[in-house]
Amino acid sequence: MSESTKEKLIKTTADLIQSKGYFGTGINEILEITKIPKGSLYHHFPKGKDDLVSEAIKFSGNVELKKYSTLASGKNTAEEVFIAIIDNLVDQIIKSDFEKGCPIATVALEVSTNNEKLRNVCSDVFNSMQGRLAAFLRIANETNAHQKANTFLTFLEGAYILTKVHKNVAHLENMKEQIKIIF
Amino acid sequence: MSESTKEKLIKTTADLIQSKGYFGTGINEILEITKIPKGSLYHHFPKGKDDLVSEAIKFSGNVELKKYSTLASGKNTAEEVFIAIIDNLVDQIIKSDFEKGCPIATVALEVSTNNEKLRNVCSDVFNSMQGRLAAFLRIANETNAHQKANTFLTFLEGAYILTKVHKNVAHLENMKEQIKIIF
Repeated sequence: MSESTKEKLIKTTADLIQSKGYFGTGINEILEITKIPKGSLYHHFPKGKDDLVSEAIKFSGNVELKKYSTLASGKNTAEEVFIAIIDNLVDQIIKSDFEKGCPIATVALEVSTNNEKLRNVCSDVFNSMQGRLAAFLRIANETNAHQKANTFLTFLEGAYILTKVHKNVAHLENMKEQIKIIF
Repeated sequence: MSESTKEKLIKTTADLIQSKGYFGTGINEILEITKIPKGSLYHHFPKGKDDLVSEAIKFSGNVELKKYSTLASGKNTAEEVFIAIIDNLVDQIIKSDFEKGCPIATVALEVSTNNEKLRNVCSDVFNSMQGRLAAFLRIANETNAHQKANTFLTFLEGAYILTKVHKNVAHLENMKEQIKIIF
């Protein structure tokens, strides 16, 4: 089955907001890349950009959760899962020449001040990610799963910002070396 | 002495990029707020927006470094300094109703992919901040100052993202409780 118009719009938007953020992504660029007419975009997303960005954020959140599950499969400890998540992020960053990584960090910071609706969508995605990390910890019989998941996610997002700004994965590699401080 | 036109432009831009980021801040808004004519802006910043944003990022970096020094004064341990830095950030976030905080995190993520010049300016600011944190650690005779400064800054930026996205300072408060894992 070929990708529907709606799916194509969501995926393209998810891709653009990952590298350029909310304000850097325009409806015209989305239309140009997808070759979908404007009327069709507004048919699927009557409220326009924010509707579409909202779906793109949710879509990216689901992709992350699925990736977490795949990476966790076959691992024996939560530490192994967390290392796999960092390795996967480093891989993605290097392969995309520092364009890709955390799909919603940029948009989350941009909308946090002025767009309560999209901030809430981002908040839900981060909560789902943290919940999934806590689940890995519980399966591995770790104590304080909520706290440790929180610390890991905090560390990961911080290392991601510094990796992007210095165009150097040293901060993520350093996090791997320091992973024991979380446990 | 009254604030010069140039200073006014830099401070207003620093303020705007802190809450709205690079793409969300327009030249017209800067001109409107400062009531400075367009010709005057281009006289001081011939290359326009990127010149001005570059100076605004450097300005914000210097403000942060001065604040770090003030917060460190009179403290006996690096842990006390770090706690004071977190407390100050929490204060600033709450007083501004979650508008203010890390002055360059948003713009750093936005420009990291597509604007090498501004990415480098942000990278320099984060390096200066990390260097200053390492200096506090060395003064307090801590071992592995570089490593610990790196871990603290990583943790701080991650907690900042999550604080903004959840509109809740719990992640920064949690970081305070967890501060010992850095040492």
